[in-house]
Amino acid sequence: MHACAPPDAVVWPRAVGQVQELAALCYRCRVPMVPFGTGTGLEGGVNAVQGGVCFDLSRMDAVAELSLEDFSVAVEPGVTRKALNSRLRGTGLWFPVDPGADASLCGMAATGASGTNAVRYGTMRPNVLNLRVVLPDGRLLHTAGAGRQARKRAAGYDLTSLFVGSEGTLGFLTQATLRLHPLPEAVAATVATFPSVRAAVACTVQVLQAAVPVARIEFLDEVMADACGRYSGTGLPVAPTLLLELHGSRQGLAEQQRQAEEMVRLNGGSVPAWSEEPEERGRLWAMRHSAWYAALALRPGCQGYSTDVCVPISRLPDVVVETQRDLRDSGLTGPMVGHVGDGNFHCLLVFDARDPAEAQRVHAFAQRLGRRALAAGGTCTGEHGVGLGKRALLREELGPEGLDTLRRIKAALDPHNLMNPGKVL
Amino acid sequence: MHACAPPDAVVWPRAVGQVQELAALCYRCRVPMVPFGTGTGLEGGVNAVQGGVCFDLSRMDAVAELSLEDFSVAVEPGVTRKALNSRLRGTGLWFPVDPGADASLCGMAATGASGTNAVRYGTMRPNVLNLRVVLPDGRLLHTAGAGRQARKRAAGYDLTSLFVGSEGTLGFLTQATLRLHPLPEAVAATVATFPSVRAAVACTVQVLQAAVPVARIEFLDEVMADACGRYSGTGLPVAPTLLLELHGSRQGLAEQQRQAEEMVRLNGGSVPAWSEEPEERGRLWAMRHSAWYAALALRPGCQGYSTDVCVPISRLPDVVVETQRDLRDSGLTGPMVGHVGDGNFHCLLVFDARDPAEAQRVHAFAQRLGRRALAAGGTCTGEHGVGLGKRALLREELGPEGLDTLRRIKAALDPHNLMNPGKVL
Repeated sequence: MHACAPPDAVVWPRAVGQVQELAALCYRCRVPMVPFGTGTGLEGGVNAVQGGVCFDLSRMDAVAELSLEDFSVAVEPGVTRKALNSRLRGTGLWFPVDPGADASLCGMAATGASGTNAVRYGTMRPNVLNLRVVLPDGRLLHTAGAGRQARKRAAGYDLTSLFVGSEGTLGFLTQATLRLHPLPEAVAATVATFPSVRAAVACTVQVLQAAVPVARIEFLDEVMADACGRYSGTGLPVAPTLLLELHGSRQGLAEQQRQAEEMVRLNGGSVPAWSEEPEERGRLWAMRHSAWYAALALRPGCQGYSTDVCVPISRLPDVVVETQRDLRDSGLTGPMVGHVGDGNFHCLLVFDARDPAEAQRVHAFAQRLGRRALAAGGTCTGEHGVGLGKRALLREELGPEGLDTLRRIKAALDPHNLMNPGKVL
Repeated sequence: MHACAPPDAVVWPRAVGQVQELAALCYRCRVPMVPFGTGTGLEGGVNAVQGGVCFDLSRMDAVAELSLEDFSVAVEPGVTRKALNSRLRGTGLWFPVDPGADASLCGMAATGASGTNAVRYGTMRPNVLNLRVVLPDGRLLHTAGAGRQARKRAAGYDLTSLFVGSEGTLGFLTQATLRLHPLPEAVAATVATFPSVRAAVACTVQVLQAAVPVARIEFLDEVMADACGRYSGTGLPVAPTLLLELHGSRQGLAEQQRQAEEMVRLNGGSVPAWSEEPEERGRLWAMRHSAWYAALALRPGCQGYSTDVCVPISRLPDVVVETQRDLRDSGLTGPMVGHVGDGNFHCLLVFDARDPAEAQRVHAFAQRLGRRALAAGGTCTGEHGVGLGKRALLREELGPEGLDTLRRIKAALDPHNLMNPGKVL
């Protein structure tokens, strides 16, 4: 969706001191700086639209300060979420935020990522305790103070939350202190199918209202279920679907399962057996995480673009149904997946980039969907960020005072507009 | 602790438009502005140290946009947490953040308050979805965009989190959109007593590690347990104590109770019967919430000051034991209560303000305690805020780059330093 814009140079610092020196040099020479983690972001955040120096931070990959008693760890930008969870194996702890891609954890902090577990464990924001930031001029900032990792604090403006989701426009995130969670004693997952999109979403709302502490509640529309089933060879029924995962103690889980099953049936859905074995659940989530490739396989040789709106849950059924109609009317292929417990869903648009008319229809559809979400009290981006493509929608979302406030903050912290210029604002 | 500094004038606006007009007038005349909610803050946040106009916002008391399906509500500054929960009676929802005092919810947002339920439901920050802010020059900002209430968003810098905890120094919070929670089906509370402070804190760490979803886990040291027992007439045993509350389904609760009891016993503690009746639990928490008055009753005619450090949980036993020793060595009365699930505890210092030597000892003790928390990787304030008294400690906590970043943000959003001057920075 976003044309590639390469930087003038790439540097691979191995230590925070090198990032500081290089940033200070770029700052003195007024050269744009673009942070790079794994490049798995979806909104063109690493495109060097004004040239400059790309800082590839993947070689800084230390896992420091792992504290099992405090449930915390500090990771450098080269550490991905899968690498961290491998490292945590056997400790009884894990890091649950899971956007699908094996992204850099610092990159996930930079975009404010979330994914399938957010309904239970939150997005990146509440799971970052501290950030070590290299400011545009090379100075080092610890957003919660050097070496600090209190679980809560009321000491001045929340700089950690400000840098989470700043998309590289305020500084380099060179270390993130993360909050870890105890591994659940037992896990069970299932695939519930429903007679309609409305029924699947109504079930979601009821599960939340009943305070069932669901860990994952993921929606696939019938097109996506069909595509995922065929791509992964699992033969998923072609119907609006919820993938449900429950975490708890052995006994607590049985009760959660009964509650969830009851709500699925109340909404006319059906639940097959629950998978409690890791391999079986692994296959289920591998299928969900392959949604992007399953969508692309619907039209070989075509390109993909994912939308990312998030709306209040009460508005989700209408917005989803209208969006499906819009897709049909626009003649577009765009299977839908959603973190419906948060009101967040994606249309995985698959289009022929060589056909300018179709690319234009995709763009117009994405704008309409963004505006539909805004009209419903939602946001144009639940977890992918603004990047290059949603700056116009951001202005509509926040209004002039909101945008002016963002700009004042940007100017205060990056007065020469050198950090990832052209993004967000 | 903080001498009273009255403003030159007080205004009682009844609508946001009036706040805007008055702010614009003060801005043009360069007059300091001090927001006022209920005045229950503990760090002198409403003291008009540079004079100016106090905006008492208590007459703006609308509860708007209650959405049961989206678990959200918008409240003006005159709405307190008790008033909101009364209003929610019968809806199956509640707002769990509970700092003890019946504070204004917008005021709680302004200080980044938390309290006894934070270990399960989070502090104010994750529970505020949007804020309607009157900026110093009178313009109106909606931190997440006007009328928006998505459960998550990645659209630009997180202005909501920036204004939560800004202590009135960036603008007036004139409406907060809050996240509500489903009322638990069943609740049980108990009082566990332990042979030592270390044993009580070790039990807390184990409860968290076992992922028991404890709703409240409150520590009282033996002095506080004695004072609370006598003040409330409940005859609490004189021992290090944990007040535990569990929320869940009926069946889930039984399992949580068994787990919690096992951990109490493993640490040499004892658990009497659990209270499941609202009246009985009400008495228990009324006793906890009367800790401040119970402490004051230890020395009639004296004044109170509460410290507020928060440290990583692994450091809590050492910090608590050292702090008890420091209290004894300093000849001070300072019973201890703590939200130990978050690592946050308070010494309720009771001293004779007419005795300058004792007041000086209290001040020196509070400074030492703040530095002890900083040395342990913690913060000088977990939930009360910086206000007037912790500015020096904040500088030590954040370091020069951190403080410079706060100052740049303050200057960008309040260039003439008119909003609650003299606080935080």
